[in-house]
Amino acid sequence: MQDLIPTIPSLADAALSTALQERIDGKTKPLGSLGLLEGLMLRLGLIQGSLSPQLRDPQLMVFAGDHGLTAQGVSAFPSEVTWQMVENFLAGGAAVSVLARQHGLEMTVVDAGVAHDFAPRPGLIIAKIAKGTQDATLHSAMSIDQCATAIAAGKNLLRQRPGNALLLGEMGIGNTSSAALLLARLSGAPIAECAGRGTGLDDAGLTRKISVLDTVLQKHAYAKEPLQALAAFGGFEIAMMVGAILQAALERRVIVVDGFITSAAVLVAARLQPAVLERCVFAHHSEERGHTLMLQACGATPLLNLGLRLGEGSGAALAWPLLESSCRIMSEMASFASAGVSEKEAA
Amino acid sequence: MQDLIPTIPSLADAALSTALQERIDGKTKPLGSLGLLEGLMLRLGLIQGSLSPQLRDPQLMVFAGDHGLTAQGVSAFPSEVTWQMVENFLAGGAAVSVLARQHGLEMTVVDAGVAHDFAPRPGLIIAKIAKGTQDATLHSAMSIDQCATAIAAGKNLLRQRPGNALLLGEMGIGNTSSAALLLARLSGAPIAECAGRGTGLDDAGLTRKISVLDTVLQKHAYAKEPLQALAAFGGFEIAMMVGAILQAALERRVIVVDGFITSAAVLVAARLQPAVLERCVFAHHSEERGHTLMLQACGATPLLNLGLRLGEGSGAALAWPLLESSCRIMSEMASFASAGVSEKEAA
Repeated sequence: MQDLIPTIPSLADAALSTALQERIDGKTKPLGSLGLLEGLMLRLGLIQGSLSPQLRDPQLMVFAGDHGLTAQGVSAFPSEVTWQMVENFLAGGAAVSVLARQHGLEMTVVDAGVAHDFAPRPGLIIAKIAKGTQDATLHSAMSIDQCATAIAAGKNLLRQRPGNALLLGEMGIGNTSSAALLLARLSGAPIAECAGRGTGLDDAGLTRKISVLDTVLQKHAYAKEPLQALAAFGGFEIAMMVGAILQAALERRVIVVDGFITSAAVLVAARLQPAVLERCVFAHHSEERGHTLMLQACGATPLLNLGLRLGEGSGAALAWPLLESSCRIMSEMASFASAGVSEKEAA
Repeated sequence: MQDLIPTIPSLADAALSTALQERIDGKTKPLGSLGLLEGLMLRLGLIQGSLSPQLRDPQLMVFAGDHGLTAQGVSAFPSEVTWQMVENFLAGGAAVSVLARQHGLEMTVVDAGVAHDFAPRPGLIIAKIAKGTQDATLHSAMSIDQCATAIAAGKNLLRQRPGNALLLGEMGIGNTSSAALLLARLSGAPIAECAGRGTGLDDAGLTRKISVLDTVLQKHAYAKEPLQALAAFGGFEIAMMVGAILQAALERRVIVVDGFITSAAVLVAARLQPAVLERCVFAHHSEERGHTLMLQACGATPLLNLGLRLGEGSGAALAWPLLESSCRIMSEMASFASAGVSEKEAA
């Protein structure tokens, strides 16, 4: 396992932080008036070790997998929607496909473990670990070996992608259950506060889902370490994202985190290597119950709060122009000195 | 005055609303899962009377003016910053200049009443009513005639611009005072809840500002009607925006409202012609105190909440890609039927 999880060093750099803040404060605007964008500029500067961070060849990777737990009725949609939506991504008809085109994001769909045989084609990487995880009420969702294989695959896939930014996306009917289980186990929060309606469960469905997840938590009470929990609760797409996140962090790429599921992968990676979080930009606050706790567990302040609960990477794609704006402002916006604008009067 | 203020009809159309909602609900996503974007799709569809709204030639108009009230020490920055920032806009160095370039927004700066003689050049429209308003502690900020002239100028300027979307921006040292006064008078809220730190007043400065604004409200206690209040409190840039907003609403252009100042202009326009609000998209929730009340007075739910307090149209520009996303999703995203994706299972 030691080779599997790279050591991610902290980016803390007091001199660079000071220089970045001075550059931000010297821009022709009242101090602090660009709000969250100013923190974003600082973060992008620290990730790239530059006063003028630049984004190039952003990669939107959508990891897909199926979940054995759906046999217990934890989702409002049937499992075959996972592969159908993968086809929709590849045909360009999903929300995330539209948004990726709009923003010039190269989109790759990764079959991490979908219960379907896809025809190979451009934009699809078939890296199936198995045709869906096992039902976690009966077994560990995956074996420790499968979990390690998925993480290693995620690292390798990321390494082969160009650019310096990774936008995370996912698809997997049932995967809000895995994310809720990981959150509950790794944060200690009650499962009823971690689990939500997913794609649209009604009250009775949500009650059933929470009951099933409670059973799963009890069955896998031993699974306290991040990798144990990941194997116990799944899914393959989350495990593969953990690998991609670790590799992206190692390479100092910017990691744009989408909603509830992708932040569960970040939470696992951060429990393994906390400095991963220094590379992350949290795109939005999802409507999915549990995301508030998830963001707290990650110490994150998201950029958007649009009431989204779609996943796919749609929130990451929607937030992407804000990252581009931050870089452009750092590079192109005038300073008080360069523009000849008077500064604030002394009090 | 009857010719000055056009009649803006309501866009209410139950059949189109139903058709738009059906189209949104048929897209390959859980019902409602695109959150605020779904309301935006509906709004854009109603404004354009189309199931596939399209944005073309968006115009970012930055209205600038000076304020006589600055003589009373209501701003942290000196008045000359207004013209210096206009030069910065035109040189491409301001935040809004950078964002307009990023998003392909045609930017025009309108001198509505800056206390400075600008050299004519492309991108600048000199439509000066006077070199700044009068000090509202002593006089009405502008005469009723000046107010009408500014509104008419705003209408004419907008009429000459191409495209079907207007993004509002402004620059004017002292103009948070005018906006706070308009909010207080038109909503009835206490001035202490309407006035904020603007470009960065400290506690003592804010106390002084509120005291000055209270004096102004008392002096112009007669100014209860929207146009009376606008003339009494200023400024020229706000009055010209009122005209541009009314004309844009009449032409069924989408109006993207920036922060505190531009929403004060919308509030005045909406008190004259309430259906103006049906054409408005509120870009963001500003950090400026009073904006929460202003949004309430406009019945508005803004898209972004990034802690911005810069003005210029920067928030409107930052929100622009969300409008583009909404149109693209309406036009390009697949339906369950077209993509062959299974729908939600019956409960």
